[in-house]
Amino acid sequence: MTKIILNGCNGKMGKVISETVKKFENLSIVAGIDKNTSSVDYPVFSNIKDCNIDADVLLDFSRPDSLKNLMDYAKLKNIPLIICTTGHSDEQLKEIENFSKELAIFRSANMSIGINVINNILKNISNLLYNNYDIEIIEKHHNQKVDAPSGTALLLANTIKNSIKEETSFIYGREGSSKKVHNKIGIHAIRGGSIVGEHEVIFAGQGETIEIKHTAISREVFAVGALKACEFMYNKAPGLYCMDDIIRG
Amino acid sequence: MTKIILNGCNGKMGKVISETVKKFENLSIVAGIDKNTSSVDYPVFSNIKDCNIDADVLLDFSRPDSLKNLMDYAKLKNIPLIICTTGHSDEQLKEIENFSKELAIFRSANMSIGINVINNILKNISNLLYNNYDIEIIEKHHNQKVDAPSGTALLLANTIKNSIKEETSFIYGREGSSKKVHNKIGIHAIRGGSIVGEHEVIFAGQGETIEIKHTAISREVFAVGALKACEFMYNKAPGLYCMDDIIRG
Amino acid sequence: MTKIILNGCNGKMGKVISETVKKFENLSIVAGIDKNTSSVDYPVFSNIKDCNIDADVLLDFSRPDSLKNLMDYAKLKNIPLIICTTGHSDEQLKEIENFSKELAIFRSANMSIGINVINNILKNISNLLYNNYDIEIIEKHHNQKVDAPSGTALLLANTIKNSIKEETSFIYGREGSSKKVHNKIGIHAIRGGSIVGEHEVIFAGQGETIEIKHTAISREVFAVGALKACEFMYNKAPGLYCMDDIIRG
Amino acid sequence: MTKIILNGCNGKMGKVISETVKKFENLSIVAGIDKNTSSVDYPVFSNIKDCNIDADVLLDFSRPDSLKNLMDYAKLKNIPLIICTTGHSDEQLKEIENFSKELAIFRSANMSIGINVINNILKNISNLLYNNYDIEIIEKHHNQKVDAPSGTALLLANTIKNSIKEETSFIYGREGSSKKVHNKIGIHAIRGGSIVGEHEVIFAGQGETIEIKHTAISREVFAVGALKACEFMYNKAPGLYCMDDIIRG
Repeated sequence: MTKIILNGCNGKMGKVISETVKKFENLSIVAGIDKNTSSVDYPVFSNIKDCNIDADVLLDFSRPDSLKNLMDYAKLKNIPLIICTTGHSDEQLKEIENFSKELAIFRSANMSIGINVINNILKNISNLLYNNYDIEIIEKHHNQKVDAPSGTALLLANTIKNSIKEETSFIYGREGSSKKVHNKIGIHAIRGGSIVGEHEVIFAGQGETIEIKHTAISREVFAVGALKACEFMYNKAPGLYCMDDIIRG
Repeated sequence: MTKIILNGCNGKMGKVISETVKKFENLSIVAGIDKNTSSVDYPVFSNIKDCNIDADVLLDFSRPDSLKNLMDYAKLKNIPLIICTTGHSDEQLKEIENFSKELAIFRSANMSIGINVINNILKNISNLLYNNYDIEIIEKHHNQKVDAPSGTALLLANTIKNSIKEETSFIYGREGSSKKVHNKIGIHAIRGGSIVGEHEVIFAGQGETIEIKHTAISREVFAVGALKACEFMYNKAPGLYCMDDIIRG
Repeated sequence: MTKIILNGCNGKMGKVISETVKKFENLSIVAGIDKNTSSVDYPVFSNIKDCNIDADVLLDFSRPDSLKNLMDYAKLKNIPLIICTTGHSDEQLKEIENFSKELAIFRSANMSIGINVINNILKNISNLLYNNYDIEIIEKHHNQKVDAPSGTALLLANTIKNSIKEETSFIYGREGSSKKVHNKIGIHAIRGGSIVGEHEVIFAGQGETIEIKHTAISREVFAVGALKACEFMYNKAPGLYCMDDIIRG
Repeated sequence: MTKIILNGCNGKMGKVISETVKKFENLSIVAGIDKNTSSVDYPVFSNIKDCNIDADVLLDFSRPDSLKNLMDYAKLKNIPLIICTTGHSDEQLKEIENFSKELAIFRSANMSIGINVINNILKNISNLLYNNYDIEIIEKHHNQKVDAPSGTALLLANTIKNSIKEETSFIYGREGSSKKVHNKIGIHAIRGGSIVGEHEVIFAGQGETIEIKHTAISREVFAVGALKACEFMYNKAPGLYCMDDIIRG
């Protein structure tokens, strides 16, 4: 049984984690950290420094500015740190890298296993296919999403761009009169209703298309990824780990 | 057996018609009109005025400027005229309307039965759904297509716009930071490879989406529509007919 | 403000209703009925007979055997009854019909507005398209679903079957050597992961396909349908109402 | 300029090859072999032994029983042999393997580049994903297709089966009452209209799905694959080559 301290247990994702963990027989949350307390079946501390409960991993779904305290605590207790918070500054990312020399740290730009699998596929095939296939990306999200295209669409698009040896660029819509320019990858942001999140990459060639699509059904998908990271990081040696390490087993 | 004179028999669509007609037991082409002759199994005349072969309908897949001669010939022979050519001027459309008082004329903006069926569905449901669903359109075509969005996407979009009582407008891509604006219908033009033509309308609501999609598999779809129009127009009384009349039977 | 008594407030759907109602400004739950009490912000009675709180409608998400008590209570208080429970016997359906002469009752086989919209589309187009299009249905659900095909797939399939003048039948898979038989409508049940629910009807013709697809994103979709029914039934005269009445406005 | 002798030039695929080759600047057909002659712009021989025209590769789209003559001719002229014919016996496959020690031979179960790319992806990810994802395959073809599921669907399904370390099996439809059995991979054959060919593999996990889809737009896709094989095989050393060698470059 891997024992988890959950930092940010009262946030949106914290609550999903608290529900999803029940489906994992070999995981349990032994303590939560958050300013506000909600009714959960584990003790909650408002400051991580006060948490005196034994645990195997520290899971973080909070805000970037808690990073320093988290790394100090994980170092003190000698337990791996799983960072699912996003939005760290370049300086903070550097700190994470430095700390990972003495501490086992997990961090991924996207906690969904599926997106990471697709990202790897794109690394493998984009350059091979580029000469003979036009590339387009379609993503769909709910009508409250502010940024377009989504961070995940840009993650996939940049993976494609970085894999292709020739110079490519992105366009975000088409209106008027002009043919497809081969090295311009279209990224189309569809917005409507309560769509959770879909990402589709199209390779369109002569007489055929290849489509690779990810659909997020609920926020649970990110909780599953985070909890698998907790399983994976149990007893790991210092180093910087990411979702790819889990996928490769 | 309905006997057809095919105007524009040596064009791209003319050739598809000559192939597809073989699948229709009750139809046959008895004469073709075109400047250049290709090897076909019916006589071809370079000028319609020289065509002295008995027929039941006159089918046109040529250019708008042949309209006058066609109407004169159809009137003279007293046979229905099926116009599948596009790009007529407003003046020409007026002429067609006038001529239809004495001649049975068929004309539709899109010769695919499927697109017409979907267009009718959109007429019926768009206003009902508008308050509770966001609307987006995705169309996909090959990389040689010049116009974006496609004429058919605009046909469907305008049907939606005209059906909804409130004011709506179109946008053709999204980049940056802003939520979906409910009355802005997104139209997304995907371009790549040799995709023949796909049109998809998405109604995205709270907790559900409705998608209505048309896929053209080959140019044959327009030939089938045109040949069904030939069947339908056999012996019809003067008047202006369109694909809806066929669909309704 | 329409005041709702929610029968079955502690069931799976009861909880979703209690959450979703917060998004409807003009609706509020004033009382719940259930054997077990969970923490909600309205009073809960274990027996509807004890509920002495004024309300405008009675919403039922429970079990068929509570029908009689519900109809008696609604009659006594003279408020419309919205039945979202499924699985009633033919005899019970007859009782509902009889009661609706003196009481406003709402009942639909499926509480999703989208499924009802699609069902209506299928009523309109199935017979028109049947001669020239093959019909197939694909539905996808999570891996815990026991019945295959889904009740909703059968609802749509029967709508198609009843709309078509010729005799059709259903098949549930294909293996071996034989061409598509035109009057056999294929119904394909895909099962996997935590897919909430997708239903897609394909009309496949010569050179084109028409696809009509519904995707349920979460159980919320059924709550939205039920709450719209509450709005709609406010102050309604006796009679039997269904989702179509809401859709038509 | 790579010069091609096309065996089976008057068959369905032979004709598509004769059209598609025009789009390849560096390829030309210098002779055809077939029993019947159609109007083509290269000389046609009814027996390969009579073909005295210099060429760089021998491309075969005919029937398995022509194998021996083809290998003899290619050996005699010392040119690579590209076999796109299917349905060879195990004995013939053995002969091909033996001959490839002295002759450059190309052979693939499916001539579409896209299907081969997807097949490789499935080899890489199926076992990694298997524990946490249910797997289902959907394929769609026209209503005249006799076999179900398609050969390509079985190719992909067997790739998945052979990649997964645990024992799996296939089922071809679902009707009745039972949950998804994890190690039974569903293969669903949709049939209708003139659909050219679609193959979709679904990995359905907790909270997400990954879908990988191939759409054949026209028979041209197989011609493109065959002609790319001609380019690739120019001047190759003896050995047995397949589509993967082309994809990897």
